[in-house]
Amino acid sequence: MGAILTSLLYIEGDGKYLMLHRNKKEHDINEGKWIGVGGKFEDGESPEECAIREAREETGLSVFRPTFRGIVTFVSDRCPTEYMHLFTCTDFAGDLRDCDEGELAWVEKDRVPDLPLWEGDRIFLSLLAEGAPFFSLKLVYRGDTLIRATLDGRELSV
Amino acid sequence: MGAILTSLLYIEGDGKYLMLHRNKKEHDINEGKWIGVGGKFEDGESPEECAIREAREETGLSVFRPTFRGIVTFVSDRCPTEYMHLFTCTDFAGDLRDCDEGELAWVEKDRVPDLPLWEGDRIFLSLLAEGAPFFSLKLVYRGDTLIRATLDGRELSV
Repeated sequence: MGAILTSLLYIEGDGKYLMLHRNKKEHDINEGKWIGVGGKFEDGESPEECAIREAREETGLSVFRPTFRGIVTFVSDRCPTEYMHLFTCTDFAGDLRDCDEGELAWVEKDRVPDLPLWEGDRIFLSLLAEGAPFFSLKLVYRGDTLIRATLDGRELSV
Repeated sequence: MGAILTSLLYIEGDGKYLMLHRNKKEHDINEGKWIGVGGKFEDGESPEECAIREAREETGLSVFRPTFRGIVTFVSDRCPTEYMHLFTCTDFAGDLRDCDEGELAWVEKDRVPDLPLWEGDRIFLSLLAEGAPFFSLKLVYRGDTLIRATLDGRELSV
């Protein structure tokens, strides 16, 4: 079926999220957008193993006990369906280093919505901020435009 | 990467789970075992959409608002890694009909452990019975033998 499995991690410290400005990779579907750190599952990895490995590779940080917050089913007319496994983590150690996929920056959580984001990311960032229980969010895009969103099977207005 | 995405649903009614005895399909990795109902994601489906569709196809029942309980990363030396999206559901309607993948039966929840089950299924069935919060369980098998289990990144004794 060719689906893509990824983990996406928002590392939290001091009221800020560690955000990645995707401005270094060519042909990056996320080009110009700000997202958390993460990437594709390697064979046999669990979602949390992927999140921990990607955090280390992209930031140099060791993260411990990430909290699994939700799954996002990302459907687009431009790429295969992606299942994003969404984590937050407040427990980490090490020194931040440069990331070859973009620029890393600590951003005050309440300023994150001011950044260029995927429309649907605002929905899950808001669920994270509210402390929502584990959720399954389906987002359907036409190009960059969110045309449908469903939260645990219930249609949201977009 | 060739991973398999599935949903697995335990429909609950009257202290019983609707169990499927996988005894009809040839070359079924689950042959002889009792499991819930479910199957593979179709393109663009969210985990809950898959669970609802598979329940209808395999049992004739319409299920409503299944509860997403956990993800199981199933690693085996015999088949590609499978990500099983685990649901329970108490809200359903319709009449049970025959399933072409096996025999359906309502089984008292506390009798389910007496059935031939995958070893690791006992772990997640026990988590479901305890009302555990959303979990990520990784199970590693050699053949039918469970050789490793990890719950939210913490090693379990097997």
